[in-house]
Amino acid sequence: MIKAGQPAPPWSTTQWFNSPQPLQLADLRGRVVILHTFQMLCPGCVFQALPQTQKLHQLFSGEDAIVVGLHTVFEHHEAMTPTALAAFIHEFRLGFPIGVDEPGNGGPLPKTMAAYGLRGTPSLLLIDREGVVRYHNFGQEDDMELGATVARLIAR
Amino acid sequence: MIKAGQPAPPWSTTQWFNSPQPLQLADLRGRVVILHTFQMLCPGCVFQALPQTQKLHQLFSGEDAIVVGLHTVFEHHEAMTPTALAAFIHEFRLGFPIGVDEPGNGGPLPKTMAAYGLRGTPSLLLIDREGVVRYHNFGQEDDMELGATVARLIAR
Amino acid sequence: MIKAGQPAPPWSTTQWFNSPQPLQLADLRGRVVILHTFQMLCPGCVFQALPQTQKLHQLFSGEDAIVVGLHTVFEHHEAMTPTALAAFIHEFRLGFPIGVDEPGNGGPLPKTMAAYGLRGTPSLLLIDREGVVRYHNFGQEDDMELGATVARLIAR
Amino acid sequence: MIKAGQPAPPWSTTQWFNSPQPLQLADLRGRVVILHTFQMLCPGCVFQALPQTQKLHQLFSGEDAIVVGLHTVFEHHEAMTPTALAAFIHEFRLGFPIGVDEPGNGGPLPKTMAAYGLRGTPSLLLIDREGVVRYHNFGQEDDMELGATVARLIAR
Repeated sequence: MIKAGQPAPPWSTTQWFNSPQPLQLADLRGRVVILHTFQMLCPGCVFQALPQTQKLHQLFSGEDAIVVGLHTVFEHHEAMTPTALAAFIHEFRLGFPIGVDEPGNGGPLPKTMAAYGLRGTPSLLLIDREGVVRYHNFGQEDDMELGATVARLIAR
Repeated sequence: MIKAGQPAPPWSTTQWFNSPQPLQLADLRGRVVILHTFQMLCPGCVFQALPQTQKLHQLFSGEDAIVVGLHTVFEHHEAMTPTALAAFIHEFRLGFPIGVDEPGNGGPLPKTMAAYGLRGTPSLLLIDREGVVRYHNFGQEDDMELGATVARLIAR
Repeated sequence: MIKAGQPAPPWSTTQWFNSPQPLQLADLRGRVVILHTFQMLCPGCVFQALPQTQKLHQLFSGEDAIVVGLHTVFEHHEAMTPTALAAFIHEFRLGFPIGVDEPGNGGPLPKTMAAYGLRGTPSLLLIDREGVVRYHNFGQEDDMELGATVARLIAR
Repeated sequence: MIKAGQPAPPWSTTQWFNSPQPLQLADLRGRVVILHTFQMLCPGCVFQALPQTQKLHQLFSGEDAIVVGLHTVFEHHEAMTPTALAAFIHEFRLGFPIGVDEPGNGGPLPKTMAAYGLRGTPSLLLIDREGVVRYHNFGQEDDMELGATVARLIAR
């Protein structure tokens, strides 16, 4: 599992939604990156983390920071296809850029998920302006604490 | 739209989950039927109506009543396939019988949805022991009021 | 503790709010009585039980049933006076009749609380049309289950 | 109404809870002061603002910041006495220092409330390390946004 202090690995994606072009982590240098990894049929993502991420997007996306979603499908691959994801993004009105993690070679884990050592979904990573991971957590986040953490990282 | 006092039309389904065999409305005569119609990518269903229906199932399914779900897909047909629904039911731990409404001939509306004149998802119908619709509503329900309505129908 | 099947003892009260005259349990024979006992500075009452009781009042108070509150102060007597209760009822917009339980002789427990053997606040009692206790519980209630229980008692 | 950019007036208080000695704003210079003004029988305070302030206290009170409550009673004075407040603080487990605003001369408004031009309860003021008001709002606050605002003020 990638930890605070380690450089964030590049992303391997096959497709993007809500973005005119594929996003590369290297191109976002200079901005704090709020990276939310999820699966569209994960209840903890749907009920809690995705509405929270949408709020992060409304509060923080701009010159200083950007919220990026990553669809890291590691189960029910036949159900959580990019086609299904497109309908999900539309119906749940997600407004931030979302990339589709590249399927792995032979195993269920997609490539970026494996490179980051994610423990499951939802996982949240905060990456500083230099591309270094400053926070990595699997599970729920508290709104107030998360707002403070992101603001501190932007103010560093 | 089928209204209170009208007989409930039979269901046209292609597949069932959480049930050893297809359910026919006629076979449920004698029990109050709580019929919840939904789509797996409908936010109002996911956030509010499906957790409520799961609670109805825990409180009321038995000799006197049965909770039945019906997946009435009228949009994003390519995303909300029976394969995707199976994963959704598993991940969201839905325990009540769920039928897949039969696709319509040429139009987006599935057959049972058309026969009942449903206005959208979620829609709730309460059908009495004789097969007559006693309640039909599109949208949110209040927990306390719904609990009372179902109990009254069972006690009639 | 008064249990289901036992007759509900009469109430000893010193004052009433939201009622033109003192209510006596005997005068309510023929109606289901939903008796909610609380303290104005009890967090479980304020956050959960009182809003729920207000909803019960809106749904059920009428010819068949009546919601009655009883302020059973057994601690912080100097803070939860009838004067303070009046302000509380006004600010929290409680609309159902509320009686003040009569202070006990020498001990902290008020008289009706002692007669009913209440275990604390909030406690809920459902009393049938004949004045017999049918439900007595200390703590939280689920909205859907409570709605059904009250409806069943009215329909008996 | 005291606005952002203006120096915060001193407080006039008669009593303190959760503090070994009376707090003076001047003594807190060097720390960000999160000043929450409330009334114990104000529903918006009880349901939303006080639980939020308790959370602010847990997250931010320390060397850099301090959460301070001020009981600004402007109505129902006979009900919201310091004696009643003591019971309220105990039952609702509030852990931050709380001062009692000094009653006004002849009018219902207490002195600090008048000096700050508060519009009602709950009102929140954020005061910077130099004693200058940086934020003043009457009503609800969003957890995430508030966490970010406080963190930014501490990081300035």
